[in-house]
Amino acid sequence: MENKVIKTIGVLTSGGDAPAMNAAVRAVVRTAIARGLSVKGILRGYSGLLNEEIIDMTEKSTSNIISRGGTILRTARCEEFKNPEVQKVAADICRKHGIDGLVVIGGDGSFRGAGCLAKLGINTVALPGTIDLDIACTEYTIGFDTAVNTAMEAIDKIKDTSISHERCSIIEVMGRDAGYIALWCGMATGAENILIPEKFDGNLPQTEMEVIESILRSRAKGKKHHLIVNAEGIGHSYGMAKRIEAATGIETRATILGHMQRGGNPTAIDRFHASMMGAYAVDLLIRGGNKRVVGYKHGEYYDLDIQEALSMTKNIDEYQLEIAKILGKTVGDYH
Amino acid sequence: MENKVIKTIGVLTSGGDAPAMNAAVRAVVRTAIARGLSVKGILRGYSGLLNEEIIDMTEKSTSNIISRGGTILRTARCEEFKNPEVQKVAADICRKHGIDGLVVIGGDGSFRGAGCLAKLGINTVALPGTIDLDIACTEYTIGFDTAVNTAMEAIDKIKDTSISHERCSIIEVMGRDAGYIALWCGMATGAENILIPEKFDGNLPQTEMEVIESILRSRAKGKKHHLIVNAEGIGHSYGMAKRIEAATGIETRATILGHMQRGGNPTAIDRFHASMMGAYAVDLLIRGGNKRVVGYKHGEYYDLDIQEALSMTKNIDEYQLEIAKILGKTVGDYH
Amino acid sequence: MENKVIKTIGVLTSGGDAPAMNAAVRAVVRTAIARGLSVKGILRGYSGLLNEEIIDMTEKSTSNIISRGGTILRTARCEEFKNPEVQKVAADICRKHGIDGLVVIGGDGSFRGAGCLAKLGINTVALPGTIDLDIACTEYTIGFDTAVNTAMEAIDKIKDTSISHERCSIIEVMGRDAGYIALWCGMATGAENILIPEKFDGNLPQTEMEVIESILRSRAKGKKHHLIVNAEGIGHSYGMAKRIEAATGIETRATILGHMQRGGNPTAIDRFHASMMGAYAVDLLIRGGNKRVVGYKHGEYYDLDIQEALSMTKNIDEYQLEIAKILGKTVGDYH
Amino acid sequence: MENKVIKTIGVLTSGGDAPAMNAAVRAVVRTAIARGLSVKGILRGYSGLLNEEIIDMTEKSTSNIISRGGTILRTARCEEFKNPEVQKVAADICRKHGIDGLVVIGGDGSFRGAGCLAKLGINTVALPGTIDLDIACTEYTIGFDTAVNTAMEAIDKIKDTSISHERCSIIEVMGRDAGYIALWCGMATGAENILIPEKFDGNLPQTEMEVIESILRSRAKGKKHHLIVNAEGIGHSYGMAKRIEAATGIETRATILGHMQRGGNPTAIDRFHASMMGAYAVDLLIRGGNKRVVGYKHGEYYDLDIQEALSMTKNIDEYQLEIAKILGKTVGDYH
Repeated sequence: MENKVIKTIGVLTSGGDAPAMNAAVRAVVRTAIARGLSVKGILRGYSGLLNEEIIDMTEKSTSNIISRGGTILRTARCEEFKNPEVQKVAADICRKHGIDGLVVIGGDGSFRGAGCLAKLGINTVALPGTIDLDIACTEYTIGFDTAVNTAMEAIDKIKDTSISHERCSIIEVMGRDAGYIALWCGMATGAENILIPEKFDGNLPQTEMEVIESILRSRAKGKKHHLIVNAEGIGHSYGMAKRIEAATGIETRATILGHMQRGGNPTAIDRFHASMMGAYAVDLLIRGGNKRVVGYKHGEYYDLDIQEALSMTKNIDEYQLEIAKILGKTVGDYH
Repeated sequence: MENKVIKTIGVLTSGGDAPAMNAAVRAVVRTAIARGLSVKGILRGYSGLLNEEIIDMTEKSTSNIISRGGTILRTARCEEFKNPEVQKVAADICRKHGIDGLVVIGGDGSFRGAGCLAKLGINTVALPGTIDLDIACTEYTIGFDTAVNTAMEAIDKIKDTSISHERCSIIEVMGRDAGYIALWCGMATGAENILIPEKFDGNLPQTEMEVIESILRSRAKGKKHHLIVNAEGIGHSYGMAKRIEAATGIETRATILGHMQRGGNPTAIDRFHASMMGAYAVDLLIRGGNKRVVGYKHGEYYDLDIQEALSMTKNIDEYQLEIAKILGKTVGDYH
Repeated sequence: MENKVIKTIGVLTSGGDAPAMNAAVRAVVRTAIARGLSVKGILRGYSGLLNEEIIDMTEKSTSNIISRGGTILRTARCEEFKNPEVQKVAADICRKHGIDGLVVIGGDGSFRGAGCLAKLGINTVALPGTIDLDIACTEYTIGFDTAVNTAMEAIDKIKDTSISHERCSIIEVMGRDAGYIALWCGMATGAENILIPEKFDGNLPQTEMEVIESILRSRAKGKKHHLIVNAEGIGHSYGMAKRIEAATGIETRATILGHMQRGGNPTAIDRFHASMMGAYAVDLLIRGGNKRVVGYKHGEYYDLDIQEALSMTKNIDEYQLEIAKILGKTVGDYH
Repeated sequence: MENKVIKTIGVLTSGGDAPAMNAAVRAVVRTAIARGLSVKGILRGYSGLLNEEIIDMTEKSTSNIISRGGTILRTARCEEFKNPEVQKVAADICRKHGIDGLVVIGGDGSFRGAGCLAKLGINTVALPGTIDLDIACTEYTIGFDTAVNTAMEAIDKIKDTSISHERCSIIEVMGRDAGYIALWCGMATGAENILIPEKFDGNLPQTEMEVIESILRSRAKGKKHHLIVNAEGIGHSYGMAKRIEAATGIETRATILGHMQRGGNPTAIDRFHASMMGAYAVDLLIRGGNKRVVGYKHGEYYDLDIQEALSMTKNIDEYQLEIAKILGKTVGDYH
C-alpha cells in the first residue's frame, strides 16, 4: 500500500439503490470528520462526478438519515464510465476538488469503476451496496436484509388471502442473476416452490411442468393453498399463473413485487453493517488502503483487492435449498 | 320486525376476503355465546352452505385470530347462488342445521344473497366486508383501513427509490369501480396524480396525455421524481409507464400491488369496528332484526334494510380530490 | 365573520406532539401557497412565537415530511402564555411579522391560546392535534390513529410472550384523563380488562381487587394468559403487577409504553385527515373564519367557535365498553 | 458418536421465549417427518417433560406458525431440573415415550439440562434460542434479530418525539449480562450514549456523570435532542432520567421497553436461521450426534460439544463500540 496522506474523502452511491446506503454515507461522513478529514458528497454516482455535482458534507448533512431508505446522494447508472477517456476526466475532477480518497457504494459495476479510478491515482474503497447479495467476497451486502424482509412481509399478506380463497399464488421477487432474495423469503414464508436463476436452464415449460406436478401432488394430499416464489431472472409470472390455472384448475394469481424491494426504512442489520462498513472504509483509506472492497466474512469486516473480489464466484447452498423444499411441502392448513 | 326467538346463529364470509373479517367472526361467535346462543360457522361462503360445510363454533374456535388477516371460515364466490332454486336449498339447509339467524360478512353481492335468504325465512344481517369502501350506506367497511395502509407503506418504499433514481413511478392499487383506496393512499403519500374510475371516461390516451403534461410541468419547475397512483379500474399501468417514458424521456416504472392489499394483520380501526359490527349484528338478530345491513355513519353503528342499502349510491368528495391535487403538486425535493 | 383579507398565514404546533402534525403543517403551507398566500412557520409553539422564532415556509420546506412522525416546527408547552399581557405581546409579534391568520395545531390548551389571540385581532383557526382523542367537538384528532396502532402492535408482541409463558401482562398506555387509547387498543388486542380514567373512582385497591377476581375466574375456566390494558390516568402498573402476582400466584409483568406512542410514521388515516384539516383551515381563514376549531363529525369536516368547542364534553360509549369486555373474556388458547 | 438408530424425536422450548422458536420447532417437526421419523412435542420445557405433557406432532401441527412470535410448545423455567434425581426421572420419561433424540431450544441453562440428559442416555442437540445473543459459540441466536428490530423501531418512534420536544430520552433495552441488543439498536438509531453491562463497573453515579457531561458537551455544540440506550443490566433508567434532568436542566424521559422485545412476528433472518438450525439438529441426531450445540459461524451451520460450548466466552467488539460512539456524536438536527 502506498502511504499517500488522505485529507479529503469523496463519497458516492452508484447503480441500483439499496436501503441503508444512507447509513453508509452517514458513517463515511462522520467517521471522516471525527478523524479530522473533509468530506465531499458526489451526487448521482459516476454521472454526477463527471458533471462535477460535488457538495461539501458536514455532520449535519447526514442528520436523521440513518432510518431512511434511498440515498440522499441520489444514484444513477453511467454507461459512458466504461470508456477509459471518461475515467481520466473523472480522476482529474477528483483531483481538482481535492478528493484524495473515494468511497464508492454500489454493486459489481460500481466496483469496476472504482478499480479504474484507483489505477488513475485516486485511492478508492468500494462497499457492497446491493439488495441482491450477489457479491462473492462477502456474506452480507448493504440492503439485502431490508429487501428480504420487505418481500417476506408482502408474501405474508398474500398468503393470508391465498389461504382464505384456497388459491395458488406466485410472487415474483427481485434477482436477475441471483436467487438469494427468492431463497430467503421463500424459506421465511414456507413457499412450496422456489424458482431461482441458478437452477434454471432456460426451459420454462419444463420448469412450469414441475411446479404443476408439485401442486397437484400437494392438492392430492389435501393442501388447499400453494405459494410459489419466483425470481425475476426466470420471470414470466403472469403467464405462469395462467398456465398453472389452466393445467390444474386451481385459481392462480401472480404478483410482481418490483421496486418496493429497493426502498423502505432499513432494518437493524442493514443500518449496523452499513454503518460499520462506512467507518471501516474511511479508516482503511487512512491506513493507505487503495483499490479495496470491504466485505463481511467469518463474523468480521475485512478488505480485499477489487480485482480479486470481482473474480470470485459464489453459489446458493444446496443444503439450504433442500431444507426449504422439505419445509414448504406440507399438507397442513390452519383451519 | 317479527320476533322469532333466535337460538342458533350461523356466520359466513363471502366474496373477496378483507382484513379483520376474522375480528368480525370472533365478535359474532363470542357475543352470541355471551348472550346464551349457539353459533355455527359456515365454511367457504354460500358455496360451503350449499355443501353443508358447517361446523360448531366455540369461544376457543376464535382464539388469537383478532390479529390475523384472512378469514378462518375461508371464502368463495358463488355464481349459482343467484338462482332462486338454489337459494331455497340453502334456506332449507339452514333450517336443517337449526340456524335461525345468519350473519353474512361480504360486499354487495353477499348482501343480495342475504336478502334472498331473508325472504325465505332465515333472519339475516349483513356486515360490509370489503377493502374497497364502495358500500354507500356506510362510512366504513371492514378491511379498507388495512388495505389503504398496506398500499401506503408500499408506495412509501417505492417513493424512496423513485427519489434516489429521480424516476417516475406508477403504482396500481385495488379498486375496480371505486377510487377510495387510490384517493386515500395517494393523498397519504403525496402523489402528484391520482387516477380513479369515478373520473375516468374510458379515454385512456387523453388521461395519459394529461398525466404527461402534468409531469412535464413539474419537471420544468424543478421536480425530479413523480408519483402516480392509478386505480385498478383504469389499469394498463405497465403500458402507461412505457408511454410516459417515451413521451417525457423520464425513466418510468410501474408496480401493480395486487392481492397483498387483501391480507396482512388488520389495523386497530379495522379490528375495532369489525368487532363492534360483529357484536351489533348478533344483538340486532336477538332484537328481531332481519334483512338488515349494519353500517357506521355519523359516528355511530346503525342498521338499515338490505334493499335500501343496495339502492344507495355514494361519490368521491370533490374537495378531497382538489386538496389531494394541490398537495401533490410541489417542486420540493428533500435533498 | 369579519372579512379581513388574509395575505400571510402563520402556523405553529403546540403542546404534546402527535404523529401527522407534519402532514397538517405541510397542508397548511401548500394550500396557502396554492391560494396565493405567504406562510410563516413559528417554531416551538407559543414559546417560539414570543421569541420571534419565525421562518419563511416554501413548498420545499415541507417536502417529504408527510410520512414522518414528530413536527418539523418543534413544539413546546408555554405556561406564561396564560398571562394576558404575554398574549398581547404575542399578538403584536404576529402583526410585526405580517401574520394576519394563524393556524394552531394542538390540544385544549393550545385552543385557549388561539382563542385569546383571536380576541386580540389575529384571526385564528385551531386543529385538534392530540393522540388522546379527548376533544369533544370532533370524532377524530390528529395522531390518535397512529398512537393506537403503535400501542396495539406493542401489545400484540407482549401477548406472544405472555401466551408462551402463560403469564399475566399489564400494559400501560397513554391517556391521563381519557381512556380512548386504552379502549381502542384493548378491544383490538382482546384484552380481558381495560382500565380507563372515566370509570375510575380513585379507589385503586378496589379496582385491583376486581381485576384479580376476574383473572381468577378466567384461570378457573382454563385460560392461561391474561392481558390488562391500563390507562396512564390510573397508572401504578408496576405496583399493580406485584400485587396481582401476590394475590393470584400467577407471574405478572407490567410494561409502560410511554412516549413511543407519540412518534412513528403516521398511518394513512392520520395523514389523510391531517392533510384535509390543514387545507380546510387555510380555506376557512380565507373565507373570513376566525376563532374557530376544525373538527371531523358525521363524515365531514366542519368548524365551530373555539369557546363552544372548549365547553363541550364527550363520554366513552357504554356499548363499546360492554362489547370489549365480552370479547376479552374467553377460555380459549391457540394451542 | 454412538450410532443409536433414532426413530422418535422430541422437541421442547425452554427458558425465556424468543421470536422464531416456532420456526425452529416447525423445522424440527417437518424435517423429522420427511426423514421418516416420528416427532413428539414436549410442552412447557423441562417442567412439562417432568409432567409428561407430551403430544404427537404432525406436519399440520406446525402449519402457519413460521410467521408467529412466541412458541406453540409454551416455555417455562424449571429450577428443579438442576437436581440429578429429577434429571433421571426426565430421562426415564423420555424412554417411556420412546423419545430417542431430543432437540432443546433455549439458552445456556437449557443447554446444561440437555447435557445432563445426554449423559443419561438420551441423545440431545441444543439450539441457541435467546434474544440476547449471549451464547459464545455462535454468531447468531434465534430471536436476536427480531428483538433488535423491535427495539430499534420503538426507539425510532421515541426519537421523533424527542426531537419535537428537544428532550433527552433514555431507552432501556433487554440484556442483563450482555450488551448486544443495546449496541445494535443504539448503533441503528444513532444513540449518543450506549450503556452496556460489559463496560459497567457497578459505579452508577460515575456512569451517569459521564453521560451528563456528554450531553452538556453536545448541547454546547448546538445539539437539541439526546438519545441514550441503556441495557437492563445497568438499569435504573427512571432514576437516571431524573438525575440527568436535575443536572442538565434538559427535560429527560425514560422508557423501559421490556417484554415486547420477546414477541412479534419474526424477521426473515430469524425465520431462515431458525428453520435451518431446526433441520440441522434433526439431521445431526440422525447422523448420531449427541450432546451437541448447533451454532452459526463463519457463514456456516456447525455443531460442537455442549460442554465445550458452555465453556466459551465472547466479548463485545471494541471497534464496533468506538464507531457507535463516533457516529452518535453530532450536532446536526433535521430542521
